Amino acid sequence: MVNAINIKTIDKPGVLRKITDFIAQNNINIVYTHMHKDSIDNAHIYMEIEEVESLDNVINELNNLSEVKEISKSPSMDQVWGKRIIIIGGGAQVSQVALGAITEADRHNIRGERISIDTIPLAGEQKLAEAVRAVGSLPRVSGLVLAGSLMGGSIVDAIDEIKENYGVKVISLNMVGSVRDHADLVVTDPVQAGVMAVMAIASTAKFDIDRVNETL
Amino acid sequence: MVNAINIKTIDKPGVLRKITDFIAQNNINIVYTHMHKDSIDNAHIYMEIEEVESLDNVINELNNLSEVKEISKSPSMDQVWGKRIIIIGGGAQVSQVALGAITEADRHNIRGERISIDTIPLAGEQKLAEAVRAVGSLPRVSGLVLAGSLMGGSIVDAIDEIKENYGVKVISLNMVGSVRDHADLVVTDPVQAGVMAVMAIASTAKFDIDRVNETL
Repeated sequence: MVNAINIKTIDKPGVLRKITDFIAQNNINIVYTHMHKDSIDNAHIYMEIEEVESLDNVINELNNLSEVKEISKSPSMDQVWGKRIIIIGGGAQVSQVALGAITEADRHNIRGERISIDTIPLAGEQKLAEAVRAVGSLPRVSGLVLAGSLMGGSIVDAIDEIKENYGVKVISLNMVGSVRDHADLVVTDPVQAGVMAVMAIASTAKFDIDRVNETL
Repeated sequence: MVNAINIKTIDKPGVLRKITDFIAQNNINIVYTHMHKDSIDNAHIYMEIEEVESLDNVINELNNLSEVKEISKSPSMDQVWGKRIIIIGGGAQVSQVALGAITEADRHNIRGERISIDTIPLAGEQKLAEAVRAVGSLPRVSGLVLAGSLMGGSIVDAIDEIKENYGVKVISLNMVGSVRDHADLVVTDPVQAGVMAVMAIASTAKFDIDRVNETL
């Protein structure tokens, strides 16, 4: 069981240290955290911690820190946004893959799952390689769809990297270039590619991407 | 100027403390950070820090910590994923709004901007209210589109909360329920709603959502 809290603090160096100090002293394991600044000089820390004896105690003690302005319990990111499919590529293709993926995710989410479909339209080998690589440092990503007409070169290295290091499943549209050869599955129809990306990660679907050995 | 680094560490309590300790001792301001665990017992810390004299020194010193397995420079999340539009609601509407938003984002991204379109199909008042509220703890969100046929009740409180606390612009489809009355803009056509959400946050578009005083 994971507990999640939102902490609003003043924005100055050392605030995160003070909070992680407290957490570590209490031998609490942080499963996930993120911190960002807003435009009005607050920092927002969201933190998922592994089962603690009394969450209320943790909240009360953190609230005593002078840097903390507000603190509240929160549902976990996993409970709210669930698993993520990322779709990257040309606008025309990304929007069609998204159409398939969102429609399919709807069918699973309505039965109690949580699957998010996150997208960015981008062009150019270097920008695409950078984005594919950056997928590795995003939380909760289960699948990546490369949606375009022509992709190869350094994008391939980035694909190999995230497949190996993060276990992300990669689906590619059937397109010109070497990206096809490095994907777990190649699909010609973009709507179908979106649908299959969701099927591949949904618990309510019986589909194993590693057992599909063909180009569709 | 913001510098970003990726740190792969062993996964045990206190690792984030050790790293934030080092950062705070060196008086470095963390602008954004997130940490998540992968499935093979590593923790991944991504960190954006404000201009430091020598990033190479910081990297070398962090690398000396016994918990650190790998460390590398990274482009910032802002450079890779940019501003975010979040689309939440029923699958049929979400996919159409996404179509408009992705197509419009493509037109801006191709001119050097970075705009991501992130979506989740969800139904039910409580789930929707929870997701709207959770938008507040996501980084880089500029706009939210509520895409459905019927939304009201506690979703309205969540909308008011994120508008006030985080300055997120809210667009609603023209639908049944009270959500309409709390949005910054109400649009009937879902594709157009997606386009306008992107126009409202793009630097390359001349469109001020606060000056549009009508239901489209």
